[in-house]
Amino acid sequence: MSGDRAGDYRILHEADLRDYLAGVPDIAALLGGGPASWAITEVGDGNLNLVFIVKGTKGGIAVKQALPYVRLVGESWPLPLSRAHYEYLALSKQAELAPGLVPALLHHNKPLALTVMELLEPHIIMRKGLVAATQYPGFVDDITTFMAQTLFFTSDLALSAAEKKEGIAAFAGNHALCKVTEDLIFTDPYRIAEQNRWTAPYLDGLAAELRDDMDLHVAISRLKLKFMASPEALLHGDLHTGSIMVTESQTRVIDPEFAFYGPMGFDVGAVLANLLMAYFASPGHERKAGERAAFEGWILETVERVWNEFARKFLDLWGAGAEGDAYPVSLFAGEKGAARLEAERQAYMQRLFTDAIGFTAAKTIRRIFGLAHNIDFELIEDPRRRAISEARAVRLARAMMVEAAAFPAIADVTGAARKLRDWMPELPG
Amino acid sequence: MSGDRAGDYRILHEADLRDYLAGVPDIAALLGGGPASWAITEVGDGNLNLVFIVKGTKGGIAVKQALPYVRLVGESWPLPLSRAHYEYLALSKQAELAPGLVPALLHHNKPLALTVMELLEPHIIMRKGLVAATQYPGFVDDITTFMAQTLFFTSDLALSAAEKKEGIAAFAGNHALCKVTEDLIFTDPYRIAEQNRWTAPYLDGLAAELRDDMDLHVAISRLKLKFMASPEALLHGDLHTGSIMVTESQTRVIDPEFAFYGPMGFDVGAVLANLLMAYFASPGHERKAGERAAFEGWILETVERVWNEFARKFLDLWGAGAEGDAYPVSLFAGEKGAARLEAERQAYMQRLFTDAIGFTAAKTIRRIFGLAHNIDFELIEDPRRRAISEARAVRLARAMMVEAAAFPAIADVTGAARKLRDWMPELPG
Repeated sequence: MSGDRAGDYRILHEADLRDYLAGVPDIAALLGGGPASWAITEVGDGNLNLVFIVKGTKGGIAVKQALPYVRLVGESWPLPLSRAHYEYLALSKQAELAPGLVPALLHHNKPLALTVMELLEPHIIMRKGLVAATQYPGFVDDITTFMAQTLFFTSDLALSAAEKKEGIAAFAGNHALCKVTEDLIFTDPYRIAEQNRWTAPYLDGLAAELRDDMDLHVAISRLKLKFMASPEALLHGDLHTGSIMVTESQTRVIDPEFAFYGPMGFDVGAVLANLLMAYFASPGHERKAGERAAFEGWILETVERVWNEFARKFLDLWGAGAEGDAYPVSLFAGEKGAARLEAERQAYMQRLFTDAIGFTAAKTIRRIFGLAHNIDFELIEDPRRRAISEARAVRLARAMMVEAAAFPAIADVTGAARKLRDWMPELPG
Repeated sequence: MSGDRAGDYRILHEADLRDYLAGVPDIAALLGGGPASWAITEVGDGNLNLVFIVKGTKGGIAVKQALPYVRLVGESWPLPLSRAHYEYLALSKQAELAPGLVPALLHHNKPLALTVMELLEPHIIMRKGLVAATQYPGFVDDITTFMAQTLFFTSDLALSAAEKKEGIAAFAGNHALCKVTEDLIFTDPYRIAEQNRWTAPYLDGLAAELRDDMDLHVAISRLKLKFMASPEALLHGDLHTGSIMVTESQTRVIDPEFAFYGPMGFDVGAVLANLLMAYFASPGHERKAGERAAFEGWILETVERVWNEFARKFLDLWGAGAEGDAYPVSLFAGEKGAARLEAERQAYMQRLFTDAIGFTAAKTIRRIFGLAHNIDFELIEDPRRRAISEARAVRLARAMMVEAAAFPAIADVTGAARKLRDWMPELPG
């Protein structure tokens, strides 16, 4: 799988890639036909990497190569190639823990920062589907299985402390990717930063309010510290709807290059935040009032079910005889012990929910005031209409971050979102 | 400093050690005279290692060699030699951050798991001094400087997230020593375990109560999880009064072989717990009522000052322009921001205090019901009198762990301790 013989890093352009793949017998056989016949297309629409689709006479593959800088920004912002190896390690682990929910790994070359994966067809990026008001009936079951399995089985509840510390150390070197998150999610949107942008002039006032809101700054700083210093489990680290590929019946989680040991609520919050943003963006995509009502109902139901199903599956795993060093069952023997442990598990999930709510808010605000935006909002062409959707999302996010106690359950979140669906913010212009 | 040329590990008996040291020119010169003239004495009274004092015509040294098993238990309980290297790494870091408060490092041989240090004379193990009712007027200032400097400067408040992750990874391999703590402090005292012991038959009933106390089991399990998964700073990891050597004017912290990145409250709690145990043990060492009253007053005052001075110094460091990635000052600009950050720092210290209180309790209970006891209690010859002292300490510890909210400040702890000074538990026999 490693294929480290290829020597030093170089960016593979189409011709280089063709030669390289021709030299990997398994891949060449999978593609079929002569290398000259392979159709190679660069399709990367992410922020960081090159992505090629290669199709031969027999089959197709996806090839991802890391660039030594942030693609979205350019060579002025270097980013280590090692992230491709961390992505490979994370994907391997996820494939083991959540089989069928990540693309199959076909080949990895560490020095080239290159990974070849199964071509996902006819899957599309989930975010695009949500913009088009598509419902995905299998999504909740798949994503909650993915999260429960990958988070539980890399946590202290399932691992010995030694295994856990080995895991933390194995991903500690991915700190440059963590730093991107620390800056772009947990810091920059709350201060003047060159890379910030928002729907001006409509949200100028709101941006200034956030920069002046010290309760919010305390809340985001606590979340940042939690992100940095709470290695609860191996996170995907970037689990938004742009990292999920779907058909109506299948779900595949891709792109775990931000993987590291962090707080579980960060992954859960990423899913919740991006579903909520799809909800708030939805009125902006309406051509006729009410035409997306069924989709909007489905999205809010999905938000609720993502948390509820995740919590149920996580607790089921914990209850099924977990062998980690935390909460040893020998301390909770007998009927009384079992009852007390069950209550403590509920309390653990409540703490995790509170974390998830905070991270949901953080992931929302960064998409509206930070560097990286998303097409849910960006494809709303009328900037005033877009700003209205964004302001509603920010209003909920601010409340979730600063008044977390007002959201003891996921229904409180969806209830608040529903109330904001038609709220009209006061905007300039 | 490393001297790795010595080849594979072997236990150095006196003659081997003499030959070995003769081959290290700096050490031989420091000792002076011919190797045959050096006086070598094995003095290890700890639980894990060999410790030699070597004196020559010019000077003396202390030599510590790790054994591949737990000395207290024997070869049936293996323990990795690598702990000697982690101890060396921690000692080096502590020497940098808290100069003059740890013994000077003179030589380290990684394969031999051997470290040569400055001979501390006429220092004694602080615990022995406390049994003898000796007061140490410089102790509070020294130990709080040690803790504030080592904890603050290895935390997210002082380091970049990348430096912090490197530190965590560097000590992740010391997990076998962490496991000793996880088992002996956070698990075994609360269940039937072969290695447990207590002052029987007097504490049989109390031991059974603790094994049946599910609120306590939840509390200790939360603390265990915090110990395993909250790498806040580089801890000493075993900061009891047996790891501190003192004269009336000097303090040296020794033996950081349990070092790892963990929750700061664990180190602080170790100091507080061992002072409180010295307080509760004190009446058991009385030959005449009231003869140790001044010492007992000093101990409780010391408990208060350890927390208060530590908190003050830690906050001073934080306030002096900390450059870590947590709580970036750019988010707290202006007068309003500074005031809000100051309030958040106080809240941070309050959370740290709550942690410290819990760990204080855990460190107390393990010394009374677990494998490793301490001479504060053990030197009380009359077992009934010893059990009375121990029961008082346990009563406070149980309350601190389960009713943490009843101890919002350190004065609540010393106040409760003072009230228990003459409390008479009901004991059998």
